[in-house]
Amino acid sequence: MKKTYLFTPGPTQIPPEVVLAEASPMIHHRTSEFSEIFANVSEDLKYIFQTKDGEVFTFASSGTGGMEACVVNSVSRGDKAIVISGGKFGERWAQICETYGVNVVKIDVENGKAVKPDDLDEAIKKEEDVKAVFTTLSETSTGVVHDIEAIAKVVKGHNLLLVVDGISGIGVQPFRMDDWGIDIAVTGSQKGFMLPPGLAFVCVAKSAWESIEKSDLPKYYWSFKKMQKALNNKTTAYTPAISLIMAAGKSIEMIKSEGIENVWSRHARLANATREGMKALGLELFAGDDSGNVLTAVKIPEGVTFDAGIKKLRDETGVTIAGGQDELKGKMFRVGHMGYVNEFDIILAASAVEKILHENGYKVELGKGISKIQEILVG
Amino acid sequence: MKKTYLFTPGPTQIPPEVVLAEASPMIHHRTSEFSEIFANVSEDLKYIFQTKDGEVFTFASSGTGGMEACVVNSVSRGDKAIVISGGKFGERWAQICETYGVNVVKIDVENGKAVKPDDLDEAIKKEEDVKAVFTTLSETSTGVVHDIEAIAKVVKGHNLLLVVDGISGIGVQPFRMDDWGIDIAVTGSQKGFMLPPGLAFVCVAKSAWESIEKSDLPKYYWSFKKMQKALNNKTTAYTPAISLIMAAGKSIEMIKSEGIENVWSRHARLANATREGMKALGLELFAGDDSGNVLTAVKIPEGVTFDAGIKKLRDETGVTIAGGQDELKGKMFRVGHMGYVNEFDIILAASAVEKILHENGYKVELGKGISKIQEILVG
Repeated sequence: MKKTYLFTPGPTQIPPEVVLAEASPMIHHRTSEFSEIFANVSEDLKYIFQTKDGEVFTFASSGTGGMEACVVNSVSRGDKAIVISGGKFGERWAQICETYGVNVVKIDVENGKAVKPDDLDEAIKKEEDVKAVFTTLSETSTGVVHDIEAIAKVVKGHNLLLVVDGISGIGVQPFRMDDWGIDIAVTGSQKGFMLPPGLAFVCVAKSAWESIEKSDLPKYYWSFKKMQKALNNKTTAYTPAISLIMAAGKSIEMIKSEGIENVWSRHARLANATREGMKALGLELFAGDDSGNVLTAVKIPEGVTFDAGIKKLRDETGVTIAGGQDELKGKMFRVGHMGYVNEFDIILAASAVEKILHENGYKVELGKGISKIQEILVG
Repeated sequence: MKKTYLFTPGPTQIPPEVVLAEASPMIHHRTSEFSEIFANVSEDLKYIFQTKDGEVFTFASSGTGGMEACVVNSVSRGDKAIVISGGKFGERWAQICETYGVNVVKIDVENGKAVKPDDLDEAIKKEEDVKAVFTTLSETSTGVVHDIEAIAKVVKGHNLLLVVDGISGIGVQPFRMDDWGIDIAVTGSQKGFMLPPGLAFVCVAKSAWESIEKSDLPKYYWSFKKMQKALNNKTTAYTPAISLIMAAGKSIEMIKSEGIENVWSRHARLANATREGMKALGLELFAGDDSGNVLTAVKIPEGVTFDAGIKKLRDETGVTIAGGQDELKGKMFRVGHMGYVNEFDIILAASAVEKILHENGYKVELGKGISKIQEILVG
C-alpha cells in the first residue's frame, strides 16, 4: 500500500476540497456563472499579492509562460535589463530576455546565496540606461529567498521597473506588492496556492503601465492589454482553464480564511523546524542563512547516493522528495513544504529523509531529526 | 433542480471517468510515474492526429497559445503567408502572423462558406514567394468545415508549408496528418477530446522541420525544439498541467477504444440528424452545405430574441447552447455536439431549441424537430 505525499517544490499536495471544486460540472466560460467565479478569484488574488490598485491576470500556462508574459509586456528590444541570477530560475529571466533581444546585464550571485542589495545598487550605478530589474523571490533550485523589500528600495531609488518571479514564493513568503512598490509579479498555481499546475497569475501595478504602453516586443497570447480588457468584462482574453479556475476559487478561499499573514507564519514555523531537524542529523543547509520557507535544500553528505534513495522511497512508499536540478543533481536534496502542509507532514518528511540516509550509508541516529522537530513544533 | 448539459462549441461535457482521472492524487512531473503516463498520452495523440512519423507536443495553454506556437516556430519575419479567413478563428491566424511581422495575404471567404481550393490555388499563383498557408479545419464561429484534404493537395502542389487549426475539428471531423500531408496541426483539449480547457496539442510532421530550423521569430515557452528535446525524455519543457494530462490519459483511451473512425462516424450521424431537425423546424443553417459535424450553426429567424432565451434556458434548466460571436451575435445560435455526445443528447438539445423558439415568438410545431431527429437516429 502506497500513500502519496508530495514534498516536492511544486507541484504540492491538493486539499480534497480543492480537488472536488476542480471536479465540478464543466461550465461554459462566456456565461454570467463563470464571470462571477472568475471575478471573485481575480479579486481575491489581489489579496494574495497584497495589492489594492494592481490587477491580476490569469493565464492558462505554467509559471514560465507567465514569466515570458512579464518580459514581452514590460520592456522593448534593445532595452537594458539587470537580471539577478543565482540559480536555474533567475537564469530563466536572462534566457527569456535574450530571446527577445533585451540587453541583459547579469548579477551572478553564488548558488545558495541571496543577492546583496548594495551589489545591486552598485551594478545599477555602473550601467547606463537600465530600464528594468528582473529578480526572484524564492529561487526554487537552491532554496534561497531574496530580500525583495530591500531590492525594491534600491530599484525604486533609481526609478526603474521591478519585475519579480514569485512562482514558488508568493503565498508562502511575506510579499507585499503595494507596500514594497513592486511593478509586476508572477506566480504559479502549483506552489503555495495548493492547486495543480496549469495557471500563471501575473499581478500588474498601475506603475507598470507606462512601460507596458511603450513595450514593442511581439505578443498575442501573453498581451496584458488584452487581458486587462477581458478582466474588465470579468473574463480572460482566450479560453480559460475552467476546472483549474474553479479549483482556485476554493483554494484561495481557504487561504483567505486562514489569513495570508497566518499562512506566512505557518510556513516560517514549519520551515524553521525542518531546517533544525536537518541540522540535528548533522546535515548542512545548501542556502545557509539565506534559506527561505518554501523548501529546505540540504547538501548531500559525501559518499551517500541519495538520488537512488529518493526513487526507491517514492516507488515503495509514495513519499516524494526532490533531488537537485541540472548541475546541482546529486549535490543536494530538496524538501518542499508549501501550501497544504502542517506539522505532522514535516515530521513525516523528516522521517523519510532519515530513512533514506540510513539505507544509503550515512550514519544517522534514527529519530534525532524528527525529535528535534517535535521539540520545536510541539514543545 | 438544474442539470448541466453543455452544448457549447467548447468546453464540452467531460465523462465522469475522465473527471475521476483528473482528480487523481497529484504526482511530481519529474518522476518515472509521470513519464510513463506522459509517454503514453503523447503516443496515443499520434493516433488521434493519424500520424506515424509526426510528434505531438502538449502545451499548458489554450488553443490560441498553440496557434501562436505554430506561427513563431514555422515562419520568419517578413515571410509571406496566405491565411484563409472566413470567421473569427481564421482571422486569428492573420492577427498572430501580423503581430510577428509576417506578411499576410488573406483569402477572405464569406462567413458561412468554405474556401474553394481553386481560389487558393489562384491566390498562391498570383503571389510571389509564399512560404506557408494557414487554415482552419472547423471554423467554430460559423460552423463551416473546410476541405483540408483538397487544400493540402493545392498547398503541396506548390511545395508550401501547411499549418492547420484543428482546435474544434480534430477528434470530430476526419483528419489525416500523414495521408493528407499536413505539416503542422494544432488542437485544444476542450473540444472532441472531452477534457477541460487548458491543454493545446500541436502535431509536427517531419516535413515541417526544415522551416522550423529556419524560423527566426522569438520563442521561449512555445519553442518546438525544446518541446522535442523534452519529449525525447518523456516530459515537457516546462511544468506540465499534470491533472489535465492525467485526464487526457483516460479520455484518449476512450477514443482509442471506440476507434477514431467510429468517433468521426458518430459525429457525422449526430450532426446530420441535428441539421435535419433544425430544418424540420423551418430554420436555415448558417453554413448550408458547408456545415461541419462539430456544431450546428443556425440562423435566428427574424423577430426572435434568441440570446435572451439562451440565458433564460441556462439559468432555469442548466442546458447551455451558444449564441453568435462578435458581429454574428444575435444573428445565429450554435449547438455544439462534439465529444461525449450520443443520440439522446441530440434529442435533448433540439428539445431545448424548440423550447426557446416557442417562448420567444417563433411559431413552432412542438416536437417536429425532435421527431425528425428520432426518425433519423432510431428509424
